[in-house]
Amino acid sequence: MKQYSRLVTLLTDFGTEDGYVGAMKGVLFRSVPQVSVVDISHEIKPYAIRQAAFALLNYYHYFPAGTVHVVVVDPGVGTARSGLVVETRDYFFVGPDNGVFSFVYERENFKAYRIREELFGEQVSPTFHGRDVFAPAAAQLLNGKEPKAFTEPVEQLESFYVGFQQKDDNQLALQVIHIDHFGNLVLNFTRDDFRKLNLPETVKIKFKNGFLYGIQRTFADAAEGQVLALWDSSGFLQIAQNRGNAARLLQMEIGDTVLLQW
Amino acid sequence: MKQYSRLVTLLTDFGTEDGYVGAMKGVLFRSVPQVSVVDISHEIKPYAIRQAAFALLNYYHYFPAGTVHVVVVDPGVGTARSGLVVETRDYFFVGPDNGVFSFVYERENFKAYRIREELFGEQVSPTFHGRDVFAPAAAQLLNGKEPKAFTEPVEQLESFYVGFQQKDDNQLALQVIHIDHFGNLVLNFTRDDFRKLNLPETVKIKFKNGFLYGIQRTFADAAEGQVLALWDSSGFLQIAQNRGNAARLLQMEIGDTVLLQW
Amino acid sequence: MKQYSRLVTLLTDFGTEDGYVGAMKGVLFRSVPQVSVVDISHEIKPYAIRQAAFALLNYYHYFPAGTVHVVVVDPGVGTARSGLVVETRDYFFVGPDNGVFSFVYERENFKAYRIREELFGEQVSPTFHGRDVFAPAAAQLLNGKEPKAFTEPVEQLESFYVGFQQKDDNQLALQVIHIDHFGNLVLNFTRDDFRKLNLPETVKIKFKNGFLYGIQRTFADAAEGQVLALWDSSGFLQIAQNRGNAARLLQMEIGDTVLLQW
Repeated sequence: MKQYSRLVTLLTDFGTEDGYVGAMKGVLFRSVPQVSVVDISHEIKPYAIRQAAFALLNYYHYFPAGTVHVVVVDPGVGTARSGLVVETRDYFFVGPDNGVFSFVYERENFKAYRIREELFGEQVSPTFHGRDVFAPAAAQLLNGKEPKAFTEPVEQLESFYVGFQQKDDNQLALQVIHIDHFGNLVLNFTRDDFRKLNLPETVKIKFKNGFLYGIQRTFADAAEGQVLALWDSSGFLQIAQNRGNAARLLQMEIGDTVLLQW
Repeated sequence: MKQYSRLVTLLTDFGTEDGYVGAMKGVLFRSVPQVSVVDISHEIKPYAIRQAAFALLNYYHYFPAGTVHVVVVDPGVGTARSGLVVETRDYFFVGPDNGVFSFVYERENFKAYRIREELFGEQVSPTFHGRDVFAPAAAQLLNGKEPKAFTEPVEQLESFYVGFQQKDDNQLALQVIHIDHFGNLVLNFTRDDFRKLNLPETVKIKFKNGFLYGIQRTFADAAEGQVLALWDSSGFLQIAQNRGNAARLLQMEIGDTVLLQW
Repeated sequence: MKQYSRLVTLLTDFGTEDGYVGAMKGVLFRSVPQVSVVDISHEIKPYAIRQAAFALLNYYHYFPAGTVHVVVVDPGVGTARSGLVVETRDYFFVGPDNGVFSFVYERENFKAYRIREELFGEQVSPTFHGRDVFAPAAAQLLNGKEPKAFTEPVEQLESFYVGFQQKDDNQLALQVIHIDHFGNLVLNFTRDDFRKLNLPETVKIKFKNGFLYGIQRTFADAAEGQVLALWDSSGFLQIAQNRGNAARLLQMEIGDTVLLQW
């Protein structure tokens, strides 16, 4: 049986200034005695499912077992898209079925359930499932209810994750999958991938406006203002500018291709 | 007697980066054992009283009875404007008398009290009542003190709320009272108003750069990029662009008039 | 022996939208039963050590004794710069040795210790000490461990604080040390300094684009839109525009000189 906590994390694209996140918190505090509500962010760019998915990857596994992770970036609210509970060994995830849990599906053994919205009563707003479906569903889990009490089986799940591609014997095509707060360009290639492929340290990294040799240990291995490649703190390869903003400097965007050659 | 909690919510225009909100939190944690401090937002636009009032409306009633809601958007700090405690059946509200509680006065039975600043000691900064008056006043309420212990009666209260206007037999003049994070234009007209007036479903909504027929159920009832009218999650009529920003698209602002015709 | 709490505050330049702060919170919740994690800000400008130092000054001393204040604005992460624990009578401070604690050194009696990173295991990312060193170090302190358990002595400490300068018998040279959220210009001169020097009330304040006479009590002592000098809520002299943004109006920046004449 899953360990049990009173911790719930919130990740949304709501901003805070309209009070919508406040409403979700109100529902949680009213429904769950002794709950701890942990803000992750409400500054995900509006509708930016991939940004939310990537952020989630950076924090979910650090929390104590039993934590409920709520993610509401939900451009399809009010359509037929499902609301989900995803259960892994240690956590529950609650949010829409639109790809926000893509990395969880890649990294974890999981079960997924479709939330039966109709059980959450007449009061469900077609525009605000964060308050009327996802927060109440999280509250049920925090109060120890099993998912089956308010869900049904689900078959197909949305995921956007695409692995890197082998172009030929000595070349991979990677993609920029995320640009972080500091302008670091994160690629769909991890240190584990690097080790498994047994690539040489002197690998060449080619992108739109230049190239680099080798993967550094830390930002300061490049002079101030210089561009470098290094492993980020979640194990992904990233292109960064020491004390600068690589995305702006190199004019690169999510989806851009980067070649790894050796 | 009012139910009693340890929950206090904070809504300010301070931003967070100067540590001013941190100071308010410090005062609360120092004064109230076991307090739970809940951030609503600190990103209200500087001095934007109406934005704060609208945000408050979206969350206050979801919290457990006994919650103390602190709102500090206070361009008149240091003038003769009063600091208030507003008491409703379920909640206390603490903040300046400048209209931030306008919607509370519309929707609730309430009593209002003027905070006696002089009781909060020599240390009151004329520029930072959030820390030196409102947080300490909230702490008193959280610790179970009655308002009368540190307030006096107040007569006149500031409110900016203006209802919609009946222009003639088949036309109402509404106002944009809020623009939310997604650019949705919120109007001073609710689903309750709509029902009471017994208006037809095919109502015509006229604004500066166009018009719409009918009120939809959810965003997805319009094609991506299209403009629609619908009820927002607090029951107000809003004009939105599906997956877009209606305020930007239509170049509309708070205070603009919208006509409802039938 | 230091009083003991479960309170930890977080001040970073991480933004929230990448989930990095979420990871730090996860580490704290996992490591410290019953911890209360208090967000101060994650919107410090990237690498803005002075802004962080100033924010810290505004809140740290309001918290209950035993609070652990974590500050992670850390452009030198991964270099030889030390990680610090700074201990004062009432608090612990945890963060990099780059000047973020400059004001604490000015105002408090303190002991400083260098964190032995190697004790935090193989998992230390060279780019994310917030998660892998500072949050775990804070957790140790919150769990009642003494600093000596995971630190060593430190000699030299980074500080950027520069006091005001006496130019001649009736003139001081001050510096803009901070610009806050509202555009107020904060100077390195306090009400205590003013009293000790026994300066007249009619002092003249000269800056790039103008001058002022006298120091006001509150914003409203100037007409709307007018510029004034007053004591800020931490006791520093500031130049402000009533209901406006003085930094923008006067085109002044951090480091600019202001003359005080009498």
